[in-house]
Amino acid sequence: MPRYRLTLEYDGRPYAGFQAQDGLPTVQGVVETAVTAFCGQTVRIAAAGRTDSGVHATGQVAHVDLDKAWPASTVMNALNAHMVREGVAVLACEAVPDDWHARFSATGRRYLYRILNRPGRPALERGKVWHVRRPLDVAAMQAGADHLIGHHDFTTFRDLACQSKSPEKTLDVARVSAVGEEVHLVFEARSFLHRQVRSMTGTLVEVGLGRWSPDDVKTALEARDRTACGPVSPSDGLYLTGVAYDP
Amino acid sequence: MPRYRLTLEYDGRPYAGFQAQDGLPTVQGVVETAVTAFCGQTVRIAAAGRTDSGVHATGQVAHVDLDKAWPASTVMNALNAHMVREGVAVLACEAVPDDWHARFSATGRRYLYRILNRPGRPALERGKVWHVRRPLDVAAMQAGADHLIGHHDFTTFRDLACQSKSPEKTLDVARVSAVGEEVHLVFEARSFLHRQVRSMTGTLVEVGLGRWSPDDVKTALEARDRTACGPVSPSDGLYLTGVAYDP
Repeated sequence: MPRYRLTLEYDGRPYAGFQAQDGLPTVQGVVETAVTAFCGQTVRIAAAGRTDSGVHATGQVAHVDLDKAWPASTVMNALNAHMVREGVAVLACEAVPDDWHARFSATGRRYLYRILNRPGRPALERGKVWHVRRPLDVAAMQAGADHLIGHHDFTTFRDLACQSKSPEKTLDVARVSAVGEEVHLVFEARSFLHRQVRSMTGTLVEVGLGRWSPDDVKTALEARDRTACGPVSPSDGLYLTGVAYDP
Repeated sequence: MPRYRLTLEYDGRPYAGFQAQDGLPTVQGVVETAVTAFCGQTVRIAAAGRTDSGVHATGQVAHVDLDKAWPASTVMNALNAHMVREGVAVLACEAVPDDWHARFSATGRRYLYRILNRPGRPALERGKVWHVRRPLDVAAMQAGADHLIGHHDFTTFRDLACQSKSPEKTLDVARVSAVGEEVHLVFEARSFLHRQVRSMTGTLVEVGLGRWSPDDVKTALEARDRTACGPVSPSDGLYLTGVAYDP
């Protein structure tokens, strides 16, 4: 059964997250419906990251098994044609081996969090950035983020509903930078706990606003206590931007 | 009567253009309604550019006369609070002299046209970029654009409904550049004819696709004939990004 790897971009606003749920519009549901419209098959797709409601992606990766070996460009164009009214697009499609798995073969995930940091609220980027009015101290945020890099027990930054077996993860990259009127936070790890990126971001914004010192982030991490976390940032600014696989 | 200069950002998609029209949602109508909600006054605002339906702005400039001398920050925050459900935001507000006029004092306008140039259709930027699938030759587009710079009769690039007295304009800047997956066109002039930017952009895309040579742009310009223009590009990718005033 030919397997295809799909790179997906989506606007998370209209959807109740990636994962299919009965009676709710989801990214998975939109793609699966497009597959059925294209070739008549009823399929389940698997994806690298189960993004929450309102979370966006520019580089989500999924796979789908089709009965027939279509050219990859045909699959991509057909799915896009059937999703033209949706906020979901296939950016790339390629045939992959049967044992390649979008989720289990992934060796890394990268997230971007966009903060619009200016007095005026967003008109063009509503729902696609977190609006923080007061100026953020990017250097202090980076100093706080540096405490998070490495292998740690991230219980403090883990949603209570997280189903991961262990709270231990290795954070490879936590980079904070000013980009025009925005502050961007980039996080890379093999995998993340549920709401880990939004928990870390909300906490680092406390540092950026001067309410927390950078060292308070270390104290919070070492507490291994969910109640030590800063406010969780909204879904609006979060993007799954890429998934890494071994060559 | 205190006059305030407003810098406006807006998402053009929900609006039938800037200018107020009976029974249609417009940017002007949204701002004027917010002024009334704020201070009870019925006002008419004036703006530097009457953008068409679907055209966006990151730096539109308008002015409004209020009965009372409010602090500028109060005006900005109040209008934003009353437009929180709209795709319009006030980015800056300052008191200006009575003889300052958003439209007539303007000495330059700058527009950006964003083209998403990749095979996959836009999911996140739907309605905010023009999607051109085939790769554009940016250098050829710039060579074509160079023919448009300077003082010319722009009849070819002027909408038939244009109400400007003269078709002669001076184009100061016409710059084409690749920015990630996008091609950006930046145009600057004291003022523009109706649909001039979209007419020039659509024509330059013909050059970028190899259907026209750069010199065909010169021929089209010199024809001074609307029928010599390439296809007019859609409103989706157009942004009024700034207005210049003498100090």
